[in-house]
Amino acid sequence: MRSRYRLVVAYDGSGFHGFAPNPGVRTVAGVLTEALSPMLGTPVSLTCAGRTDAGVHAWGQVVHFDGPSGVDTERLRDACNKMCGPAVVVREACVVAGDFDARRDATSRVYRYSVLSGRVPDPFRAHLSWHQPEPLDITAMNEAARHFVGEHDFASFCRRRTARLPTGDRIEGSTVRRVLRAVWSEQPDELLRFEIEATAFCHQMVRSITGTLVAVGRGRMPGASLPAVLAARDRHAAGPVAPPHGLCLWAVRYGGGPPVADGVPDPLS
Amino acid sequence: MRSRYRLVVAYDGSGFHGFAPNPGVRTVAGVLTEALSPMLGTPVSLTCAGRTDAGVHAWGQVVHFDGPSGVDTERLRDACNKMCGPAVVVREACVVAGDFDARRDATSRVYRYSVLSGRVPDPFRAHLSWHQPEPLDITAMNEAARHFVGEHDFASFCRRRTARLPTGDRIEGSTVRRVLRAVWSEQPDELLRFEIEATAFCHQMVRSITGTLVAVGRGRMPGASLPAVLAARDRHAAGPVAPPHGLCLWAVRYGGGPPVADGVPDPLS
Repeated sequence: MRSRYRLVVAYDGSGFHGFAPNPGVRTVAGVLTEALSPMLGTPVSLTCAGRTDAGVHAWGQVVHFDGPSGVDTERLRDACNKMCGPAVVVREACVVAGDFDARRDATSRVYRYSVLSGRVPDPFRAHLSWHQPEPLDITAMNEAARHFVGEHDFASFCRRRTARLPTGDRIEGSTVRRVLRAVWSEQPDELLRFEIEATAFCHQMVRSITGTLVAVGRGRMPGASLPAVLAARDRHAAGPVAPPHGLCLWAVRYGGGPPVADGVPDPLS
Repeated sequence: MRSRYRLVVAYDGSGFHGFAPNPGVRTVAGVLTEALSPMLGTPVSLTCAGRTDAGVHAWGQVVHFDGPSGVDTERLRDACNKMCGPAVVVREACVVAGDFDARRDATSRVYRYSVLSGRVPDPFRAHLSWHQPEPLDITAMNEAARHFVGEHDFASFCRRRTARLPTGDRIEGSTVRRVLRAVWSEQPDELLRFEIEATAFCHQMVRSITGTLVAVGRGRMPGASLPAVLAARDRHAAGPVAPPHGLCLWAVRYGGGPPVADGVPDPLS
């Protein structure tokens, strides 16, 4: 008998080449499968809710895999943490319905981007936030962020992934996405947090939006130009891409319910 | 003309062999002097308030050095942070009286030790806290901590540093110290914080006290035995030494005034 298991995984992405398995480099999925497969005595293949890029962190990554039935999930979690920790931590493990799909069933993803806004950097938060020593106009950033909410073609904010057909033709995926909310908030200790939720994101979309909004906050780009930037469908129209180490996949929502791994405190605040 | 400068320095001690200069290994003082000396055009020699061990962090380490007069201290701070960051950060730089001594004038040091008490570890705080998956009795730990307050011979809690005289004789420094306060507090997110202030500490004293109090919290040692442990003047009587990565030199007090670098929020809470 086989069962389907769901994990909620947190990781410090600093030392990883992203989530997805990639032979020859250290990835989060690689570390997890190397722990899980011998533990379960069967090759384990992971499906995740959000394929985070190199250097990007997660607090509430959701993963599913199939394995033998009857596994004690608390012991699995603890054994996995002994083997994978401390950079990769299984926060929760449970059995789910056999047709649950961590990626396909996710109805939205919540990302947080952390900007440390102060003259002096902070050694304890350096790997989890983007330091911006110049003052940022958070009001302007929030006004500009509203332009992203709703369904738009985010081609200006996405790194295209193209696939080549056997005929030699290239196909490009759609870059139309629906953003549910996009809000900056001031947290204690000079931390500015950008939280954005969308049904799905295309590649580098959060970092590209964040970099553009920080350019607005620094007065280098007018927020009112964003509708035109979206309409341009051209990456050169957008601002710079924010670095990966400020980004965290915070939570994933399934159905209309509360997001998995949300409602927990921010490690940075 | 020469002036004396004071720095308040924060660092993530993870990648360092402690504060003090030590040829051939990476130390905090080494990184700072390599930045400061060429900047000031003169060899810089640092005196610090607390010589932290390998792996120990600091939020409010205080340092003094002499250099040419007329240096713009804000520019010095920012230039130093560009060269040393992000693991070492100069939080403040100023000119002080020519007879100020960061070590000798310090009237007390405040250390914080962070314990993450919860079944599941946290990848974002792993390098800043000691993970204790078993429940800890904080009431017992606080009752036991009171035994350390006051003037005691801490020989049971100190790694002796001996010096050899030219005659071949060995001399041992005194291990009598005065602890002003020692308190555990529950912080958000399963964090237990131990804060201890003393006029001075001997080597490994905070980690040895912390490890002993955690043993009390786990029920492995009765808190009431601590007066006898102190009286034994024997390291074997004490509990284990807590690992360095949970420890942080939080602040240093000069005269009766408020501590330098205190009154700031904890990066962990």
